[in-house]
Amino acid sequence: MPIEKDTLPENPAESNTEDKNVPVQRIVSGIQPSGRLHLGNYMGALKNWIALQDRYESFFFIADWHALTTNYEDTSPIRQNIREMLVDWLSLGLDPEKCTIFLQSDVLEHAELNLLLSMVTPVSWLERNPSYKDQQTQITGRDLSTFGFLGYPVLMSADILLYRADHVPVGLDQLPHLELAREIARRLRHFYGPVVPEPLPLLTPTPRLLGLDGRKMSKSYKNCIYVGDSSAEIWDKVRPMVTDPARVRRSDPGDPDKCPVFNLHQSFSPPETVQEVDKGCRTAGIGCIDCKKLLVGHIETILQPAREKRQEISARKGFLKDVLQEGGKTASGEARQTIREVRRAMRLPDEDLFA
Amino acid sequence: MPIEKDTLPENPAESNTEDKNVPVQRIVSGIQPSGRLHLGNYMGALKNWIALQDRYESFFFIADWHALTTNYEDTSPIRQNIREMLVDWLSLGLDPEKCTIFLQSDVLEHAELNLLLSMVTPVSWLERNPSYKDQQTQITGRDLSTFGFLGYPVLMSADILLYRADHVPVGLDQLPHLELAREIARRLRHFYGPVVPEPLPLLTPTPRLLGLDGRKMSKSYKNCIYVGDSSAEIWDKVRPMVTDPARVRRSDPGDPDKCPVFNLHQSFSPPETVQEVDKGCRTAGIGCIDCKKLLVGHIETILQPAREKRQEISARKGFLKDVLQEGGKTASGEARQTIREVRRAMRLPDEDLFA
Repeated sequence: MPIEKDTLPENPAESNTEDKNVPVQRIVSGIQPSGRLHLGNYMGALKNWIALQDRYESFFFIADWHALTTNYEDTSPIRQNIREMLVDWLSLGLDPEKCTIFLQSDVLEHAELNLLLSMVTPVSWLERNPSYKDQQTQITGRDLSTFGFLGYPVLMSADILLYRADHVPVGLDQLPHLELAREIARRLRHFYGPVVPEPLPLLTPTPRLLGLDGRKMSKSYKNCIYVGDSSAEIWDKVRPMVTDPARVRRSDPGDPDKCPVFNLHQSFSPPETVQEVDKGCRTAGIGCIDCKKLLVGHIETILQPAREKRQEISARKGFLKDVLQEGGKTASGEARQTIREVRRAMRLPDEDLFA
Repeated sequence: MPIEKDTLPENPAESNTEDKNVPVQRIVSGIQPSGRLHLGNYMGALKNWIALQDRYESFFFIADWHALTTNYEDTSPIRQNIREMLVDWLSLGLDPEKCTIFLQSDVLEHAELNLLLSMVTPVSWLERNPSYKDQQTQITGRDLSTFGFLGYPVLMSADILLYRADHVPVGLDQLPHLELAREIARRLRHFYGPVVPEPLPLLTPTPRLLGLDGRKMSKSYKNCIYVGDSSAEIWDKVRPMVTDPARVRRSDPGDPDKCPVFNLHQSFSPPETVQEVDKGCRTAGIGCIDCKKLLVGHIETILQPAREKRQEISARKGFLKDVLQEGGKTASGEARQTIREVRRAMRLPDEDLFA
């Protein structure tokens, strides 16, 4: 069943700041630990999360169990990837004072709810999940015919329902995944009553960021600018970027729509700069090197503070561990409460079994 | 891969009693909480368990999560079923001083290992599991096309591997299930090293017990003698049993092979009684009522002590709760150790993530 227009939230965040009687709504989201974040990851998720943590009760987690759905054969990078990702999150501005940051595998209840949801989820729902077949075709060299890969949406549903989230921040492309989680929530409610809310999508902007070579920015293409790159590394990457191939000489006018540098300007530069380089390019009023310098300057306004934060974090021994430990405690508390309610609704054993 | 003959255990139990240097081997087994046990359940599992608890380090559990694979729509009887089954186990002679008795859902690690094993288990192994299609055909009126039902063997594998069991007591009919668990264990070892042993079958006698109407004894046929039945109830059930239909008069000889009473004699009476009634029936030397009285007498030698034990248990408030609590603690300790080792082998996060 498609999500109807009128079920989309009318920006509850803003109304919350005006009316203190409206309870703060809750969101949950996670990312697989793929290691260092690049600018595409930042624009696709972190930037939104950092904005949302001020307005919502937010749960953000590193989805290490999810990483096994596609990477079970070589698990060697997972631990390092978790550490790097956490440093990036914190240095970019995700604040453990404002949101709950935790590691999925620190909360066993994700596995329990996954198991309980699996009991009510028809296999056919999972088989017809478009990304199931898509990924099997796209990801070559790995065997993705496992039970865990088929069950990916069940685990994802558990991640969301475990925190009784009102909303899930998603881009348009992820709506089908959330729709499946909503279907599973409805199925649970159908059998056992309204034990968990049906989570609504919170549509967030997720621009398609191009990499250094003009293809989508992606680790596997080795065309990324990482949020942890130094100023020098970034300039060394951006300087040789191929712009509009038709613009051979400084005096040739260019077409920004054919230039990956302009794509990055659209995400990182303020509107007046975007307008300025668009016009400058088309009229040969600005050279590519100057255009790139402008871009790097605006990227730096985000990454320079992150770099300082990163240094500060590195100096605080045990800080990362504390963040995950504290976040894990908060998350576990919420998760246990949900499990208690789900067990009661499903009439499973609880502490009153022999009362 | 079929289990080769020479991998079957050469009764390690007996050698253990002779040589104290051989470590005691471990077994694990569970039953779904279907409520009161009948004599078929007793013969099929409990009788063996009670014998095995003296020779093996034994883990026996009530598989309440498994009950959801086929009974997710009506979960209302599960709690009562757990209590009744536990009373039957204890009254028949399963001894919490000798073995670990626990409830599956008290040990969340079953769900965690289930999730981890799902990542390495090919869907095709589960689809070609013979009992998957069989049960879908045989159990009518229920929708068994769920992800949880398909994943039944994965959860069962987790139940076994979580306790690093050397052996699993099984009847011949259950060998294919264990074989799948062994395949999953091998797959885990293939990717991550020898983290859990490959459990061997411990073949145990599981006679096919007939019910009051001559069909297989089964709750759904309402043809059961329950281990909790009173003497009067048992006699009221056995007295009217139809014996060999050709034996109309007391003086007609009968054929024991056509008589469900004789089937019960074979399981419950000593060999000399079995021989006696076999001969007596064929020669019309014994009447059916006398034959039934003999049978009930031998059933009573098992059930009368169980009845006394049952009364004793009922008088000890909190005893059932204590048994599961203590058993759960022991089981959790073992489960956590396995999970620690599996996490390390799979290079997943552990307490040393930031060390």
